[in-house]
Amino acid sequence: MTLTNPALSPAYPELTRRLADLSAIEEAIGILQWDQEIVMPPGAADARARQIATLAVLHHERLTHPRHLELLSTLQGDGGGLDDVARANVREAARDHRRASRIPPDLVRAWGEATVKAHEIWVDARKHADFERFRPMLEHLVELAQRRAAAIDPHRTSYDVLLDEFEPGMPMARLDTVFAPLRDFLVPFIAQVKTATDLPDVGWLHTPVPVDLQREAGEAIVRAMGYDFHYGRLDVAVHPFCGGAGPTDVRITTRYKETHFTGSLMAMVHETGHALYEQGRNRDLGDQPVSRPRSYGIHESQSLLWEKQVGQGAPFWTWHFPRLQERYAFLRGLDFETFLFGLNRVDFGNFIRVDADELTYPLHVILRYEIERDLFSGKLAVRDLPEAWNAKMQAYLGITPPDARLGVLQDVHWSSGSFGYFPSYTLGAMYAAQFWRAALRDVPGIPDGLATGDVGPLVGWLRTHVHRPGSRWETDELVRRATGEALEPAHFIDYLRAKYTRLYRLPAGV
Amino acid sequence: MTLTNPALSPAYPELTRRLADLSAIEEAIGILQWDQEIVMPPGAADARARQIATLAVLHHERLTHPRHLELLSTLQGDGGGLDDVARANVREAARDHRRASRIPPDLVRAWGEATVKAHEIWVDARKHADFERFRPMLEHLVELAQRRAAAIDPHRTSYDVLLDEFEPGMPMARLDTVFAPLRDFLVPFIAQVKTATDLPDVGWLHTPVPVDLQREAGEAIVRAMGYDFHYGRLDVAVHPFCGGAGPTDVRITTRYKETHFTGSLMAMVHETGHALYEQGRNRDLGDQPVSRPRSYGIHESQSLLWEKQVGQGAPFWTWHFPRLQERYAFLRGLDFETFLFGLNRVDFGNFIRVDADELTYPLHVILRYEIERDLFSGKLAVRDLPEAWNAKMQAYLGITPPDARLGVLQDVHWSSGSFGYFPSYTLGAMYAAQFWRAALRDVPGIPDGLATGDVGPLVGWLRTHVHRPGSRWETDELVRRATGEALEPAHFIDYLRAKYTRLYRLPAGV
Repeated sequence: MTLTNPALSPAYPELTRRLADLSAIEEAIGILQWDQEIVMPPGAADARARQIATLAVLHHERLTHPRHLELLSTLQGDGGGLDDVARANVREAARDHRRASRIPPDLVRAWGEATVKAHEIWVDARKHADFERFRPMLEHLVELAQRRAAAIDPHRTSYDVLLDEFEPGMPMARLDTVFAPLRDFLVPFIAQVKTATDLPDVGWLHTPVPVDLQREAGEAIVRAMGYDFHYGRLDVAVHPFCGGAGPTDVRITTRYKETHFTGSLMAMVHETGHALYEQGRNRDLGDQPVSRPRSYGIHESQSLLWEKQVGQGAPFWTWHFPRLQERYAFLRGLDFETFLFGLNRVDFGNFIRVDADELTYPLHVILRYEIERDLFSGKLAVRDLPEAWNAKMQAYLGITPPDARLGVLQDVHWSSGSFGYFPSYTLGAMYAAQFWRAALRDVPGIPDGLATGDVGPLVGWLRTHVHRPGSRWETDELVRRATGEALEPAHFIDYLRAKYTRLYRLPAGV
Repeated sequence: MTLTNPALSPAYPELTRRLADLSAIEEAIGILQWDQEIVMPPGAADARARQIATLAVLHHERLTHPRHLELLSTLQGDGGGLDDVARANVREAARDHRRASRIPPDLVRAWGEATVKAHEIWVDARKHADFERFRPMLEHLVELAQRRAAAIDPHRTSYDVLLDEFEPGMPMARLDTVFAPLRDFLVPFIAQVKTATDLPDVGWLHTPVPVDLQREAGEAIVRAMGYDFHYGRLDVAVHPFCGGAGPTDVRITTRYKETHFTGSLMAMVHETGHALYEQGRNRDLGDQPVSRPRSYGIHESQSLLWEKQVGQGAPFWTWHFPRLQERYAFLRGLDFETFLFGLNRVDFGNFIRVDADELTYPLHVILRYEIERDLFSGKLAVRDLPEAWNAKMQAYLGITPPDARLGVLQDVHWSSGSFGYFPSYTLGAMYAAQFWRAALRDVPGIPDGLATGDVGPLVGWLRTHVHRPGSRWETDELVRRATGEALEPAHFIDYLRAKYTRLYRLPAGV
C-alpha cells in the first residue's frame, strides 16, 4: 500500500492497521468455522456458537467504532492524497462500515437468534417434507430481512439492498434483463435437448471406485491445477466448500461416494477454482479489503470456469484422461468422446439444485430469484411458496417435485437468512463464460497448454485479470477491463447453445 | 452462578458477561493454537501469528478496560452481596486484571517480539549445540522478564512474581523447603537404586508395533479411563499436549514410534489425565474463571496421578494387561511383574527431562529451579549457565551432558519467556502422591475398581475434590480440603521410597 503524499493523509496508515485487525478477526472466525465443519467434537457446538458470536461482536464493535468512521470520513474527503489502490481500499472499507453501522444492535441480536433457531426448524421440516413446520419461522425471517434492508438503506427496495450484499451493482432491474433472456433461451432449448436419442452410454459413471483411489486421483488433479498445498489442505466435508483464513491458508474439501467417482472429482476441481482465486490474491495487501475477492458472483465464476469450461472440456482431459486410465482400469476401454459426454450429460429428471448439471442449473437459480423478488415485493406470500415453486419447476423444467423436501425445502440458504444469495451462482456461470472467451482471445495457447498439462497460460490470465485485482475496481469495471465489456448474457447463451448442440448432436441453428 | 442478594450487586451479572467474553476469546485462541500444531498448512504461520496476536490484544483491551476495573472494585468492596462461588470468581478475575493491567503496552509488545525471535534462535542454537548463539537473546529475555516482574509487583523479588504466574502461593521461600528434602532424599537414593542387579529384562519394550495397532490400543484405554470423545478428540502431535477450547472441547494428542509402544500409550494416559480435569470442570460455570483448573501444578497432578500412580500400577494393569495381550501377541509370554517393571524402570543415563522416568525427573526440575532462582537473584550470570547446568547434572544424577543440546539448550521454555514454569512439574508429582493417598484413604475400593475396569470410584473422588472445585479455593485450601493438609513433600518421598525399594528389591529401611 503506497501513499503518493503521506503528509496529506496520516489517517491512512491508522486505517490500514484497523483493517488488518478486522481481517485477523475474520480469519479467526474462518478457522473456527472450518474446525466446526471438519474436526470439532460434536459436544462443542454450543461453545463454538458462543465463540463465533463473541468474535463477531468484537468485529462489529471495531468496525463501527467512532474512530473508524472518523478516519473513513477524513480519507473519503481527501481524494488527492491517496493512490488508486488506497482509494479503492477506503471505498471497500467504507462500504463495510456503512452496512454494519446502520443495523441497530437489537436487530443484530434478533437476527442471530432467529437464524440459529431457524436452521434446526428447517432441518426438521425438510426431514418430514413438511413446509408448514418451517412457514412461521420463514415468515419471521422475511420480516427481519425487510427490517434489516430498511435499516441499511430506506430509499431502495428491500430486495435490492439484500442483493447488494452478495453482488454489489446488480439490482433487480438489471438482473431481470440478464436472467430473462437466459430463461427464454433455456426453456425451449432444454426441451429440445431432451428429445435427443442415440446417446452414448453413461453406466460407467457409477463404477465403484475405492475412496482412497479417488482421493489420490483427485489430489493429483488438484495439484496439477496449481493449487499450492503449502498454503492449504484437502479434507472431507458433508458439503464441499472452500474455507480457511486469508490467502496463505486456503482449505478445500470434497466428499466421496464409491459409486460416483466423478462427483468427488468435480467437487475438487470446483473448490480448487475457488481456492486459486484466494491463493492468487495480492498477498502484499492480504489483510486489506482491496485484496478481497470482488463478489460472490465473481468467486463463483472462478470455481465454475475450472469445473465447466476447463474441467468438462476436451483439452484438459486430453492430458488427464490417460492418467486417470492408468489409475482406474475400468476406464481403459472407454473412448474419449463417451467419457466427455458422461461428464457433461444433462439430467432432465433432477429436482435438486446442488445436483443439477450445467444446462438446467440456471433455471433452478432463476426460479429462486423470481420467487425471492416476488416475496419481497409482496406479490407472493410465504404460505404460497410451495405452489409457486412447483408451478415454476413445471414451467421451466417440465417436472413437478413429489414433495417439499425435493422442492421448496431443499436449500439451506433461507434458514440462514441468506436472501439474495442465489443469483450469484448463475451470475458466476455467466462471468465464467465471458472470462473464458476473453482469455482464449487474449492467450490462444491456453487450450494447448491444458492439453499438455500446463495450466500456466490460463492461471496467468486469471491472476492478472481477476485474482490480483481483487476488489480494486467495482465489478463492472473489473469485468470490462478483463473482457472489454460489462456482463453480457449472450456469451453464456452462445456457449451453452454451441456446446449442447454439439454434445447432443442437435441440428445446427437451434 | 447465584447471587444471594442480587439487589446489592447489579455489577455482578455485568462482570460475568464480560468474563464470558474473555473466555470465548481465550477459547478461540485455544483452537487457533491447536490448529497450528495439528492441521495448519505450513505457509500460514505468519498469518496465524497475526491472528493470535490480534485476539490477544482484543483480550487485553477488554481485560484492562476501565469498566472492568470499576466492576471489580465495586464487587471486591461488597463482600456481603455475593455467595462464596461468586466471591471466588471475582477474586480470580481481579487477579487476571491485576497482572494484565500492570504491564505497560511497550513491554507487552517487546515481549511478544522477543519471544517470536527467540524461538527461532533457540531452534538454531540447539541444532548446532551452540549455547553462544542463544546467549545474547536469553540475556535479553531475562532482562525483559525482570522488567515484567517489577511492573507486576515492585515489592517482591522478580522470580517470586514469575513463579506466581504458574503456581500462586508458591514463592521461593516455600519451594526451597519443599524441594530441598526431596533432592536430599533422591540423590543418594537413586545412587543406591543404580546398584541393583538381577533385574527383569526390558528388551520387550522395543518390540515393533504397527502405529495403527498402537492407536487402537491407546484409544481403548483412553476410553476406559472415562475420557468422553463426544467432547474431545485424539490426534498426532510432535509434542503431545492437551488443548482445545473449554470443558466441552478438550483435545488430546500423542505421538507414535513403532519401536516404543509404551511411549505413545503412556503419553495418552498422561494427556487423558489432563483432559479428565478439563472435561470434569463445573460446566454450569464453564465460561467463568472460578471453574478454571487451579494451577499448573494441580493440572500436572491430574496427568501424573493417572500416568504414575494409576497407569504404572498393578491394579490398572490387572484389568488392562490381559486386554493388551489380546492385541499384542508378543506380550502373551511376558509375566505381569516383568511388564510392570518395564513400565517403571529407571533410566540412569538419560540427559533429557521429557524422557526422564518418575524417579529422576524431579532432579531435572530441581536443577532448573535452582538455576532460575540464582539467575534472577543475580547469583548466576547467563554466560555461566552451561557450566552450572553440567555441574548440577553431575552432582544430582552422576552424569555430564556431552553437549548443550543434551544439556542447557534442551528445553523450549526459556525461549518462550516461561521462567518459573518448571517447578510445577514436580509440584504436580507431589500433589499427585498426596491426592492418591487421600483418595485411597477416603475410598478404599479404588484399587479393586481399577482391577475390574471400573474407574468410577477414582474419577468420582477427583471430580469432587479437584475437578469441580476448579479455582474456587486457593491452592492450599483446595489441597487441605481434599487431603486434610497443605502440600507435604513427605508423601511423595514415602511413595517413591516404597515403590522403588520394592521394584529394585533394595534392602528394607533404605
